Amino acid sequence: MSRTTGDRRAEIIQAAVEVIAERGYRGASLGAVAERVGLTQQGLLHYFPTKEALLVAVLAARDQWDVASTALHGTTWPLEMLTSLVEYNATRPGIVQTFTVLAGDSVTEDHPARAYFEERYRWVREGAADMLRAEFGERLPGGLTPERAAPLLVAVMDGLQVQWLLDPAAVDMAAAFRDFVALLGGTGNT
Amino acid sequence: MSRTTGDRRAEIIQAAVEVIAERGYRGASLGAVAERVGLTQQGLLHYFPTKEALLVAVLAARDQWDVASTALHGTTWPLEMLTSLVEYNATRPGIVQTFTVLAGDSVTEDHPARAYFEERYRWVREGAADMLRAEFGERLPGGLTPERAAPLLVAVMDGLQVQWLLDPAAVDMAAAFRDFVALLGGTGNT
Repeated sequence: MSRTTGDRRAEIIQAAVEVIAERGYRGASLGAVAERVGLTQQGLLHYFPTKEALLVAVLAARDQWDVASTALHGTTWPLEMLTSLVEYNATRPGIVQTFTVLAGDSVTEDHPARAYFEERYRWVREGAADMLRAEFGERLPGGLTPERAAPLLVAVMDGLQVQWLLDPAAVDMAAAFRDFVALLGGTGNT
Repeated sequence: MSRTTGDRRAEIIQAAVEVIAERGYRGASLGAVAERVGLTQQGLLHYFPTKEALLVAVLAARDQWDVASTALHGTTWPLEMLTSLVEYNATRPGIVQTFTVLAGDSVTEDHPARAYFEERYRWVREGAADMLRAEFGERLPGGLTPERAAPLLVAVMDGLQVQWLLDPAAVDMAAAFRDFVALLGGTGNT
C-alpha cells in the first residue's frame, strides 16, 4: 500500500468514526462517509469494497487506539484501566452499537467480519488473562485461574453493552462492570 | 387470529426451528421454510411478512418452551437449571446463532426485533433476580444483591455464546458459565 493510499484510508476511517458517532450504525452509510471526505461513493469503494470492510477497519483502528493510548502504563493493562474503558464506552454509543451489530453478525458462516472477530477474541482473551495474572497472580481471590476468568470478563463487557444499548435507563454498564470486577477480585460489594 | 391461522403459524415456526437447526441462521431462508411446510414463499409472507418477523416468533417460542418445560419445578427456576440450559444451548448452535445475530442487530434504531429484545431483557433480568433471591436471599455470598447480579448473569450467558460460536474449540460455554455461578455463589472454583 502506498503512503498516499494509507493516508487516504486513515482519513476515511476517521470520517467513518465521526459519522458513526453522530448517526449510529444505521446512519453510517458509505454515501455519508464518502461525502465527508469529498469522494463519490464509487471512489470510496476503491478503498473499502463494502460497508462491512469499512466498519471492520474502524473497529480494528479503535482496538489499536485503545491499546496504544495506555501503552505508557506498561506492557499489560491494570484492571482499573479496563473499568475506565467501559466508562468511556458508555459515552460513545455509536461505535459500541457498531461493534455489537457486527460481532453478532460475524457468528454466521462466511461473514466478512468473522475472521476479524475470531482473531480479536483470541487476543482479547489472552490480554485479559495477562492483565488478571499481573493483578492477582496464578489464582484469583474468587478461585479462578486467569485463563478461566478471561472469557467471563470479555463476555460481561460484551453482554452488558447489548443490554445498555437496548435500555440505557435500566442498565448502568460501568457500575455493573465494577460489580463484576469486585466479584473476581473477592473485594466484596457494598 | 383464527384457530387455523394459529395452527398454521405454529407449524411454520416449527419448520423454521428445524431449518435453523440444520442450516444455521444464513441457511434459514423464507424459501426453505416455505418449502418445508408446502407453501409458496408468497404464501408464507401472509403469516410472517419478513424473515425478521419469523425469527422473532421462533425466539419467542423458544423462550416459552424453555420456561414452560421447567414449570414443574416451581415458580422460579433454580440456578442449577440455568446451567442445564447453557449445556443444552451448546448442543443447538443454529438457534443460538440466530439469537446472537438478531440480538446484535436489534440495538439499532427502528430494528424490527428491537421491541422484542427490549422486553425480553427486562423479564429475563427480573426472572434472574427472582432466581438468585430464591437461591441466596437478599445478598449473594459474593456480596451483590439479586438485582445487581442479574444483568451480569444475563451478560455472561450472551457474551459466552458469541465467543463459543466463533471458536467452539477455545471456549467451553457450559464450563465457563459454571465458573461464573460458583463466583456468584462464593463456593469457590477448583
